[in-house]
Amino acid sequence: MTNPDPSRPTLSEVARRAGVGRSSAARVLGNYGSVSEHTRRRVLVAAAELGYETNELARSMSTGVTMTIGVVLADIANPFFAAVFRGISDAARAAGYGTLLVNSDEDPELEDEAVRLLVGKQVDGIIAAPAGGAHAPAAALRWAHERGTAVVQVDRTLNGFDADAVVMDNRDAARTAAERLIAAGHRRVALAWGPARQGRGAVTADHLREWAGSSEISSVGERYLGYAAALEAAGIPLDPALVMTGEQTIEGVRRFARRALAGEGRPTAFIATEVDAVIGVLAEARAAGLVLPADLSLIGFDDSPWASVHDPPITTLRQPVQRLGEHAAEILIARLGGDRRPRVVDHLASETVDQGSVAPPG
Amino acid sequence: MTNPDPSRPTLSEVARRAGVGRSSAARVLGNYGSVSEHTRRRVLVAAAELGYETNELARSMSTGVTMTIGVVLADIANPFFAAVFRGISDAARAAGYGTLLVNSDEDPELEDEAVRLLVGKQVDGIIAAPAGGAHAPAAALRWAHERGTAVVQVDRTLNGFDADAVVMDNRDAARTAAERLIAAGHRRVALAWGPARQGRGAVTADHLREWAGSSEISSVGERYLGYAAALEAAGIPLDPALVMTGEQTIEGVRRFARRALAGEGRPTAFIATEVDAVIGVLAEARAAGLVLPADLSLIGFDDSPWASVHDPPITTLRQPVQRLGEHAAEILIARLGGDRRPRVVDHLASETVDQGSVAPPG
Repeated sequence: MTNPDPSRPTLSEVARRAGVGRSSAARVLGNYGSVSEHTRRRVLVAAAELGYETNELARSMSTGVTMTIGVVLADIANPFFAAVFRGISDAARAAGYGTLLVNSDEDPELEDEAVRLLVGKQVDGIIAAPAGGAHAPAAALRWAHERGTAVVQVDRTLNGFDADAVVMDNRDAARTAAERLIAAGHRRVALAWGPARQGRGAVTADHLREWAGSSEISSVGERYLGYAAALEAAGIPLDPALVMTGEQTIEGVRRFARRALAGEGRPTAFIATEVDAVIGVLAEARAAGLVLPADLSLIGFDDSPWASVHDPPITTLRQPVQRLGEHAAEILIARLGGDRRPRVVDHLASETVDQGSVAPPG
Repeated sequence: MTNPDPSRPTLSEVARRAGVGRSSAARVLGNYGSVSEHTRRRVLVAAAELGYETNELARSMSTGVTMTIGVVLADIANPFFAAVFRGISDAARAAGYGTLLVNSDEDPELEDEAVRLLVGKQVDGIIAAPAGGAHAPAAALRWAHERGTAVVQVDRTLNGFDADAVVMDNRDAARTAAERLIAAGHRRVALAWGPARQGRGAVTADHLREWAGSSEISSVGERYLGYAAALEAAGIPLDPALVMTGEQTIEGVRRFARRALAGEGRPTAFIATEVDAVIGVLAEARAAGLVLPADLSLIGFDDSPWASVHDPPITTLRQPVQRLGEHAAEILIARLGGDRRPRVVDHLASETVDQGSVAPPG
């Protein structure tokens, strides 16, 4: 946290002089939570000695700074979001902030409830992976942002919502994956999953581009655009039958893979951009009697330790997921400390981990 | 939630009459969070019509009921705890409660901070997987419990802490796993992981029993006792060299497995009670050129979808992890609703999922 006026003592300096943790000092000076009488006395004495009460304490009293950050994530049972939260939590703790998590389950109404709950608990700022949705997406997040609560989006950016954001460079990751498969000789590369289907009927490349652009969960759209760009650069025509647009579950992936593998011109490689997509492709490959990588190549986006002990170990685009959370927390904490830069949208790069599930087409 | 006086209207009845959700009604009547003016008016009218404000509202005002539950878990990046939180969160939401999670990272000091943070945020009750530790384990949890905050322990029970608890039947699960391997013909069954080592020097069966009994994270001790009971019932002498007592990480498991597999009388089967233990055993088996299940049998406790697509699919003790969280929330919510039963300690049973990593010893 930056100190806007170096001549004034900071909360950290009070904590250091009192010989207590920053969060204990914040509780005493913010007059919330619970600390021992001993600690309370030491902090108040240190604050008085440093002349602290004339500035930051007054601010903390009037603005109600609570040294807590609220976090709203889609589904904490997904290891991706669990790692994001871990990163947020660690970075926040290092800066003296407590962290409170609420699950939104990708449901815009539950997200709104979660945001209101956190605002009711007087968090200083909110980090959220916005759920999107057809009606008034992120209504409560926008409301909180407009009333002055610092908000940072993580993993996604909603169209038209100008809060700071930290996302994976999903377009680059998907393009890298497709390029590697093309370099290995593949021309029939399937993508699971692609943009969410809008409407019925046959899907064209134009549909896919349009859906990717309007996708409220921008990561999915970005990945499709990276995939399509790699095909185009290699002069390979895009086949909409190789892009999954159905239900985004393991079962949905299995259905998509089954249909694709049974059809004319079956894919010789898959890009699976979620853990459930990786599992679905592996399950369906086994059901079809296909051996990786001789019969089918696969690049996954899930850096689970299971991927390394799989036979063959799965080639993976390792995303710095915990770093994603840490960086979101750093941006938020800088804002809370007075950072007034224009909007920040940072992209984190992935790293390819070669493990043995890619080979030339059989 | 039970209604202690049936002649008085409940919060649910007010919500129903107002045509709003229970949590919206709670926010209006508890005077926290944010709701639309329209909702606020409807709820206040319904409360007045039902005569609600003379009882529960007054109680809510004076006791500060906030319809929020605090959760303190060891490490949310561990899929086990992520699923526990998911269960808590879903059950709480169904009863109109919001849920706030804080990570403790298995560190007693961070757990204390987390509990104080949640108490400061006026949660109605707390669900925690206590971290244990040498000095004053669960100090803040005990403090919160004694001052009247409802507390439910989940996944573990700390010695001497009499809050309600919901745990897996870990002793039964480990005994079942060992019995299955013994029934398949194995007599050299390794356990990863066993109780934490206390002190140096050679480990005896007496040490192991003592460490299991004093283990503050009771699940580990219980699993060892179930394993030992199955061996004893089959008349197989316990070999301490087959029980891991070192560092509880993937690398620690690999070192343990490497030593055990290289020694005289190497194990023909492993029980791996954590996801990291499963990964460590699989990695080391591959490094040693052992093929499952012909050269080595394995029963894991991790019900990841990766286990089903592994080659061979891993035989697993499926623990109803999400249910563990749900049930903890149900007990807590009943307590908040006035349930005055004596202390509840519930054990949930595991289910064996036969998948193909168990065979007779080669």
